[in-house]
Amino acid sequence: MKKTGVILSGCGFLDGSEIHEAVLTLLALDRAGIEAVMLAPDIPQTHTVNHRTGEVEEGQMRNVLDESARIARGAVTDLALIDTLELDALILPGGYGAAKNLSDYAFKGAECSLNPDVAHAIRSFHTAGKPIGFICIAPALAAQVLGAEHPPLTIGNDPSTAEDLEKMGARHVDCPVWNAIVWNEGKVVSTPAYMLGPSIAEVAKGIDRLVEELARLL
Amino acid sequence: MKKTGVILSGCGFLDGSEIHEAVLTLLALDRAGIEAVMLAPDIPQTHTVNHRTGEVEEGQMRNVLDESARIARGAVTDLALIDTLELDALILPGGYGAAKNLSDYAFKGAECSLNPDVAHAIRSFHTAGKPIGFICIAPALAAQVLGAEHPPLTIGNDPSTAEDLEKMGARHVDCPVWNAIVWNEGKVVSTPAYMLGPSIAEVAKGIDRLVEELARLL
Repeated sequence: MKKTGVILSGCGFLDGSEIHEAVLTLLALDRAGIEAVMLAPDIPQTHTVNHRTGEVEEGQMRNVLDESARIARGAVTDLALIDTLELDALILPGGYGAAKNLSDYAFKGAECSLNPDVAHAIRSFHTAGKPIGFICIAPALAAQVLGAEHPPLTIGNDPSTAEDLEKMGARHVDCPVWNAIVWNEGKVVSTPAYMLGPSIAEVAKGIDRLVEELARLL
Repeated sequence: MKKTGVILSGCGFLDGSEIHEAVLTLLALDRAGIEAVMLAPDIPQTHTVNHRTGEVEEGQMRNVLDESARIARGAVTDLALIDTLELDALILPGGYGAAKNLSDYAFKGAECSLNPDVAHAIRSFHTAGKPIGFICIAPALAAQVLGAEHPPLTIGNDPSTAEDLEKMGARHVDCPVWNAIVWNEGKVVSTPAYMLGPSIAEVAKGIDRLVEELARLL
């Protein structure tokens, strides 16, 4: 059975992983007969956001690995151990956690940098010719690491986000929510998901397509 | 468009809603063309559990409505307002939150009582002839409120939990994870989900069946 690492970034789209995207990824992998190995860095969240009010909750510090364990039903591994695992592919769901915890893209845009373990994971899988899927805002991380190779990537239809991707060297591709874009030579697949919305069933179609293409590249 | 209330109990299976079950419910409703209206009581969680270690985190108090908003992407309504909403049906996903926050079943078993707003929601929808779906451990709440009518309900295959259901007046029905049981006269549907597992794709089959039967009863 093939194994795919799923890199989570917390639990909740405003300060962690987009929950629907993460769960839909696990569902698509299970249906495709691919084992999901959930991973997250053992670091504090940049902040905690109250998802009802949208306000930052001062003095509430949560840990990315601990909160990711909520989505993973406990079965989550520290991303720092990735070299000890035998994984065939990698998927990064979206949510602000990708842009606030796995990287500082939410604060620095095209000048962003990545958490070292996340950068190492993307780079080492790419170098090893293993497929990687990027969902929602996560393609910004692909652009930062792989920009020199000018990968085609999705990011929805927000002009300034698309511009950031291009500044980092990527080629932004318009893609409807139900579809995924494949960079065959680089074995990278991306889909806009909740960067476009508008509903969970539409987002599920795009994530199903992404996993289908990833499985084909395996 | 028909509207179904989805009563959440936090975010994470050890102290709130089972995240996969909640998301799979939203997915099935959206695919069936039914609008989901997410609800939760505005009360403190009974406690916060670290989902990586399984330990209770002392001094960490979270709010059920705020944490449910993570699954709802912000769009969650205080359950106390349920009478002001026009809803056609109700679904209660599982997770320990149903047994710790929506009720005290986790601590008192067959002697449990329910949060008054949750009890009111179940009773008023049932009296109005509106269908209600109960997932995973949530049928214990149905047994407590509707036990006098001896509803057939699922709870997985744990003998002591099944015994609790019978003590409260319900008839426990063995049901595989991919299926759902319907009490036609009472318009109640239930499915065991993660009370049985073993994987998200199997749980999704049962929740799809539950929503299918609920739509039929609408």
